[in-house]
Amino acid sequence: MKNLLGNGTLMNSYTMAEDKPLILVTNDDGITSKGIRTLVNVMKQIGDVLVVAPDSPQSGMGHAITVGETLRLEKNHIFEGITAFECSGTPADCVKMARHFVLKDQRQPDVVVSGINHGSNTSISVLYSGTMSAAIEGAIEGTPSIGFSLCDYSHDADFSHVEFYVRSITQQVLRKSLPKGVALNVNFPPKRNESIKGIRICRQANAKWVEEFVQRYDPNGRSYFWMTGNFVNFDKGEDNDEWAIANNYISVVPCQFDLTAHQAIRTINEDWEIL
Amino acid sequence: MKNLLGNGTLMNSYTMAEDKPLILVTNDDGITSKGIRTLVNVMKQIGDVLVVAPDSPQSGMGHAITVGETLRLEKNHIFEGITAFECSGTPADCVKMARHFVLKDQRQPDVVVSGINHGSNTSISVLYSGTMSAAIEGAIEGTPSIGFSLCDYSHDADFSHVEFYVRSITQQVLRKSLPKGVALNVNFPPKRNESIKGIRICRQANAKWVEEFVQRYDPNGRSYFWMTGNFVNFDKGEDNDEWAIANNYISVVPCQFDLTAHQAIRTINEDWEIL
Repeated sequence: MKNLLGNGTLMNSYTMAEDKPLILVTNDDGITSKGIRTLVNVMKQIGDVLVVAPDSPQSGMGHAITVGETLRLEKNHIFEGITAFECSGTPADCVKMARHFVLKDQRQPDVVVSGINHGSNTSISVLYSGTMSAAIEGAIEGTPSIGFSLCDYSHDADFSHVEFYVRSITQQVLRKSLPKGVALNVNFPPKRNESIKGIRICRQANAKWVEEFVQRYDPNGRSYFWMTGNFVNFDKGEDNDEWAIANNYISVVPCQFDLTAHQAIRTINEDWEIL
Repeated sequence: MKNLLGNGTLMNSYTMAEDKPLILVTNDDGITSKGIRTLVNVMKQIGDVLVVAPDSPQSGMGHAITVGETLRLEKNHIFEGITAFECSGTPADCVKMARHFVLKDQRQPDVVVSGINHGSNTSISVLYSGTMSAAIEGAIEGTPSIGFSLCDYSHDADFSHVEFYVRSITQQVLRKSLPKGVALNVNFPPKRNESIKGIRICRQANAKWVEEFVQRYDPNGRSYFWMTGNFVNFDKGEDNDEWAIANNYISVVPCQFDLTAHQAIRTINEDWEIL
């Protein structure tokens, strides 16, 4: 991984041990967040770490990418001994830039890890999640990928109870890989008095947000809105991520990027009169 | 649909005929694009139209939503006789605001239509597509929803050959509804000498973008990047959207928002040593 970038300003001379896995770290809360710092610290124990993360918070960015606008990428020195870049784009942009610009023709990551997100990405939130879009982007590239989220939104959330699991899940994925086209959506319960009970491999719960728009007026009398909302869980099952978190388990949902509702193809073919 | 919005500035007195379907129109190219104008003109023939669309282009926004920032919503008068709002947010925001603010406790849309996008949203592009995120947001709300895209990126694309199909597909969806949790990703071939051959209900092709980052320098000598890329189709099948478009068919892919790779749950449960 010599000469990481082909220009004088960004060139670096970081040399990687060949026998250690290469781990690409990104997130959606931005490169200065506590969650990514925790993730980097854990990953340093497992392999060689490359960070390409947003230079500012990108929560709720879903699978947005930057088209029709330019991107910035700068070296960042906040992680001691770690090669890191901050990118002006979205989490998905970060994975693309790491793959196709920073590493380009060099060795590609053995695993992409994203997070640790400050806040839940269970059930329907997977669609809105920048954390998970980075992991899914990794899976599209054919790299085993994991999005980690802690169900605690606070800026100064306590990640100490999940470090062990972040490490063991990543090591497990490095050892066993993942089915093709699958990224893991891993959510951790917030720190509670009781210890975490274990890991549940489960499905995305049937739940959604019911939004409310709070209308206010700016000093010029023009209205603006804050989107708020309530999370509503319709799911009565015990095999889903909401149940797991509520019961102090870690939820692991294998996610795919083929959105086709395969069973609906036949239904529509039989049903429609205009084919 | 009287008193659409509860404040003096935005209040309107549009009255809807009860026997006509209510159609929510949005897009990701922005409210002034030719594609949404075409869509509004077709939908006027079918039912009552409400437009809530982005005030500026939002291509590539994926399923982004606006959190931690404010939103604007203003009445817009560019469509004669049509109630329309422009929103500063993403396509998904537009559907949420239409549902939970503009219509709130009133009658909800019978169908959500998004587009017509200037450019393809076949295969993997469904993930990056603002057009489709609006349709999927409609499906999350339980409303039959359709994203329409024309495989022609030009600002002044010719939509004349697809108007008939936009109308008939929407009417078909209104008559037959859609399976629960399914939104349609409809892509049209660009205008060619040969007429469109028909409609194929199909799956998302296995294809992806291979990005390239073009590096330039601003007048201050600081580098910036343009993301470009090549689309690579790995799919040899004939039952997918890429095949359909290449062969001058309309592709209709039923899409779901449950990302769970259900078959992988068992694999991982059997495979992992840390459960």
